[in-house]
Amino acid sequence: MAITYEHIKTCRQTGARLGKVHTPHGTFDTPAFMPVGTLATVKTMSPEELESMGAGMILSNTYHLWLRPGSDIVEEAGGLHKFMNWNGSILTDSGGFQVFSLSDLRKIKEEGVHFRNHISGEKLFLSPEKAMHIQNQLGADIMMAFDECPPYPAEHKYMKDSVERTSRWAERCLTAHKRPHDQGLFGIVQGGEYEDLRKQSARDLTSLDFPGYAIGGLSVGEPKDVMNRVLEYTTPLLPTDKPRYLMGVGSPDSLVDGALRGVDMFDCVLPTRIARNGTCMTSNGRLVVRNAKFARDFRPLDENCDCHTCRNYSRAYIRHLVKANETFGIRLTTYHNLYFLLNLMGQVREAIKEDRLGDFREEFFEQYGFNKPDAKNF
Amino acid sequence: MAITYEHIKTCRQTGARLGKVHTPHGTFDTPAFMPVGTLATVKTMSPEELESMGAGMILSNTYHLWLRPGSDIVEEAGGLHKFMNWNGSILTDSGGFQVFSLSDLRKIKEEGVHFRNHISGEKLFLSPEKAMHIQNQLGADIMMAFDECPPYPAEHKYMKDSVERTSRWAERCLTAHKRPHDQGLFGIVQGGEYEDLRKQSARDLTSLDFPGYAIGGLSVGEPKDVMNRVLEYTTPLLPTDKPRYLMGVGSPDSLVDGALRGVDMFDCVLPTRIARNGTCMTSNGRLVVRNAKFARDFRPLDENCDCHTCRNYSRAYIRHLVKANETFGIRLTTYHNLYFLLNLMGQVREAIKEDRLGDFREEFFEQYGFNKPDAKNF
Ligand SMILES: [Zn+2]
Ligand SMILES: [Zn+2]
Repeated sequence: MAITYEHIKTCRQTGARLGKVHTPHGTFDTPAFMPVGTLATVKTMSPEELESMGAGMILSNTYHLWLRPGSDIVEEAGGLHKFMNWNGSILTDSGGFQVFSLSDLRKIKEEGVHFRNHISGEKLFLSPEKAMHIQNQLGADIMMAFDECPPYPAEHKYMKDSVERTSRWAERCLTAHKRPHDQGLFGIVQGGEYEDLRKQSARDLTSLDFPGYAIGGLSVGEPKDVMNRVLEYTTPLLPTDKPRYLMGVGSPDSLVDGALRGVDMFDCVLPTRIARNGTCMTSNGRLVVRNAKFARDFRPLDENCDCHTCRNYSRAYIRHLVKANETFGIRLTTYHNLYFLLNLMGQVREAIKEDRLGDFREEFFEQYGFNKPDAKNF
Repeated sequence: MAITYEHIKTCRQTGARLGKVHTPHGTFDTPAFMPVGTLATVKTMSPEELESMGAGMILSNTYHLWLRPGSDIVEEAGGLHKFMNWNGSILTDSGGFQVFSLSDLRKIKEEGVHFRNHISGEKLFLSPEKAMHIQNQLGADIMMAFDECPPYPAEHKYMKDSVERTSRWAERCLTAHKRPHDQGLFGIVQGGEYEDLRKQSARDLTSLDFPGYAIGGLSVGEPKDVMNRVLEYTTPLLPTDKPRYLMGVGSPDSLVDGALRGVDMFDCVLPTRIARNGTCMTSNGRLVVRNAKFARDFRPLDENCDCHTCRNYSRAYIRHLVKANETFGIRLTTYHNLYFLLNLMGQVREAIKEDRLGDFREEFFEQYGFNKPDAKNF
């Protein structure tokens, strides 16, 4: 088995899981946050920087790499790890999410999806077999089954058809996957906000015995309490001896709330995307470093953070760089934001170990400002 | 004395100088190339990266820092070294070059120059006293006298007036400079392509006994042979116990030709600017990594280079990143180009040590392609 999950303990206060995921490129502790490297690079960061901040696994995007530079080139380079010089673990998504979110004019058929390249307009086709072929070329440690990710909200009837097709596609993915010895394929549970459909999807997929399961179709615009409710009834449907991955979630509150409901893995572009704008996550909430009030503020971004950025650079300097469009400013904010989330997951793991994740949630939410009536998502 | 020059030996084949410059922030070997960090950052690079590639001194721009973030903010931060977290040596220019190259509507008077901010259009005034005040606030190891940098070509009459004014300004700079104990002020020899005016300028400035001398007004559009001829008669006019700095020069051929004519220090934005375009300097000449022919080329940028980029990344990967506008691609090309020039200066120093800089020039020019009839500047 390419991917195995080692369960260490369950938080007695919350039921959250502490564990390890073993991959062909090393082991990482869970719950874990995975930085996103869409085009075979976590924007502005070097592999050494990712390693130094404690990233064990990163995510890269099948759809984007298929178009640029082309999955055949990545294969010829010796696979994604070698191409991008990252020796840690990698997960590739299936391309499904991008087909459904970036592309217009798509036609979903039983055999797969016809759509247009979001850059060139060229006609393309993606199917379970094609998604497996591309991901086998990329060679990530974990790959994802090709699924349909319906929008929120969607009708029950539409969602039921979609869930059933995603289950049939999952089976085809398993059959088409050529490297189960060194790449673990995860199934994706869909079903939107419908408990009966989540049950149906989980039942279908767990019967296929994937080495891990993702929960898809969340963080697509639904309110937080919907996400939390879906997680509450979905994670218990998944096997306890396999990792559980909540796709596309990266706001600090959702990471804590997801871990608390039994999720092991998360990914999101949020920390890197907002960093490019000069927005930082800190232990006291959001800090928009472009603001004029930081012009002469020589404190670090976060006085409670011991990351490389916070140990060496001031808000005033970073503000200057960000305002002058200097790349190094974005490197500094990106590093800090990723470190902040990786460090948060470390605190979550510590709290699970000590059976106090519920208490930790209260303290963290209070300090970050999530308990305020006008609290933002991050 | 804040700045001292230690002469080690003279190349018997060419007269080139091997030496060391001692500064309050360390010593570096000469001839040396200084990367340019216009806005208190060498574009895309971290201080650690600059250190790892062997940069001893970097240059930063008085005019740009005066406007953004403001020299008072840098002073409040504890000076430029602390503001940007660079513990090596720093040289700041005087702002003169930017006033004359970036700004329209300037009026040169005896007291200084009236001009407009190239970003906001706001009216500004720079004088010898003001340039010294700003540079004292920035706190670089080496600062430059405020000079006029006339365009190429300029009439003899205009140049003579300008040289004489620059000499009067140099004297005012010496008087206004408040930190001679920990900041060394260099004079700038002007005079364009006129030997009599270079002599006059050198005589005026050396009589003021600066701790170092720059040769200004070159690399402003004149042909290479004009630059070389000017250097040939100008460097012998400068004291042998002080460093000599050729401003704004960074193409590989000009670095070798300058060292060969007795220059000790160089700076230029060339390696960083072309890197942002995906253009690389290699031992076999220019390489434009965006080109389609590199899509499946898994060799390093330069097979003779042992820099971090060349040891870990392929042309195919870098091409992919540069074409996708990914910052990390520019980090990799920038690192390589700077390393290439710093390494070239190491080879120049080695050749001086072995009295064979003339031979080295022939070999290097031949391999790089500078001897070809259609040779480019870099
Ligand atoms: Zn930090
Ligand atoms: Zn290199």
